[in-house]
Amino acid sequence: MIKRSGRRRGSPDTRESILEAARRLFADKGFDATTVRAIASEAGVDPAMIHHYFGTKEELFRESLSIPFDPTTEIPKIVAEGLEHAGENLIRMFVRVWDSPLGGAGAALIRSAMSNEWTTRLLREFITTQIMRKVVIELKIDPAEAPLRASLVASQLAGLAVMRYIIKLEPLASLPVDDLIKAVGPNVQRYITGSLDAAA
Amino acid sequence: MIKRSGRRRGSPDTRESILEAARRLFADKGFDATTVRAIASEAGVDPAMIHHYFGTKEELFRESLSIPFDPTTEIPKIVAEGLEHAGENLIRMFVRVWDSPLGGAGAALIRSAMSNEWTTRLLREFITTQIMRKVVIELKIDPAEAPLRASLVASQLAGLAVMRYIIKLEPLASLPVDDLIKAVGPNVQRYITGSLDAAA
Repeated sequence: MIKRSGRRRGSPDTRESILEAARRLFADKGFDATTVRAIASEAGVDPAMIHHYFGTKEELFRESLSIPFDPTTEIPKIVAEGLEHAGENLIRMFVRVWDSPLGGAGAALIRSAMSNEWTTRLLREFITTQIMRKVVIELKIDPAEAPLRASLVASQLAGLAVMRYIIKLEPLASLPVDDLIKAVGPNVQRYITGSLDAAA
Repeated sequence: MIKRSGRRRGSPDTRESILEAARRLFADKGFDATTVRAIASEAGVDPAMIHHYFGTKEELFRESLSIPFDPTTEIPKIVAEGLEHAGENLIRMFVRVWDSPLGGAGAALIRSAMSNEWTTRLLREFITTQIMRKVVIELKIDPAEAPLRASLVASQLAGLAVMRYIIKLEPLASLPVDDLIKAVGPNVQRYITGSLDAAA
């Protein structure tokens, strides 16, 4: 705490300095190789300040991308009623987040990831380390298959976000949530538990 | 031809003026309500000049969005081997376009549609009038269901473009085309011909 200046302590700049340093390092070195200490050093603050503002390294990563949900608590809910309901529950949760005020943050993140190479890297790293890993653990699917399954699910969810919430293509954009679950849920379910080798 | 100035005739500006006028009108009034005559008037050129540079109104629309394929010729190919192979063939065609140099134009279009409201409108109008209508005719699916089916297919294809070609999420980004067809083809096939009412 000695090296920090009085000005930085609790100043609004501090939080933004930490977030900027975190974005740079997570995008550049990846989540695993980036330590809280390195972020603190890059931001010119004490590591304790990072814990004070953001909690864990995972929470800081989420905050640096403005991810509007916590994978640690949300992913277990997807399989709470059994793996065979995971597709359905995932779409229900997805729509709940996107139809809420948090959807704006999601759209902003996707827009940014489309046009900014650093955000692209950050988002890719986030999906890989914060979502896919937890999916492997929580959904108890074969670790050898899990990355492909998770990236296929990600493709359907990203496309749903783009077409329903950003491009607003009808009738998908106005489809009631229960119809959306019936239409898209089984496809997501197949990516999670179905055979991916079956010919069309 | 009398009213045009000599400078505009065949000048590189003419082509761009026509494209700009077309983008404005297609986005503002939609494809159906926009006439070649109105575009010509907006661009300050003779309608014959538009036909000379771009051919039909449909071709001009495609060109105004730099769409790297012609739905009129490509959509029939999807069902050339029967409707039951449509999912598989669609993914094969999709990958062929995106893996080619044309993929860059596709990525640029998606990026632009994410961040620019006018491009969003143009792309939505393009999908609705140039793709969905032809899908209804060529795929001979129930016209009452076709818009939902087509928008669901669009969601999966958009997500595939985003995750495989823009975010480059692994292992999806490097998945060989035959594996991709096996993984994604059946999901697209369900959107085209399957029951969308089935619970997960």
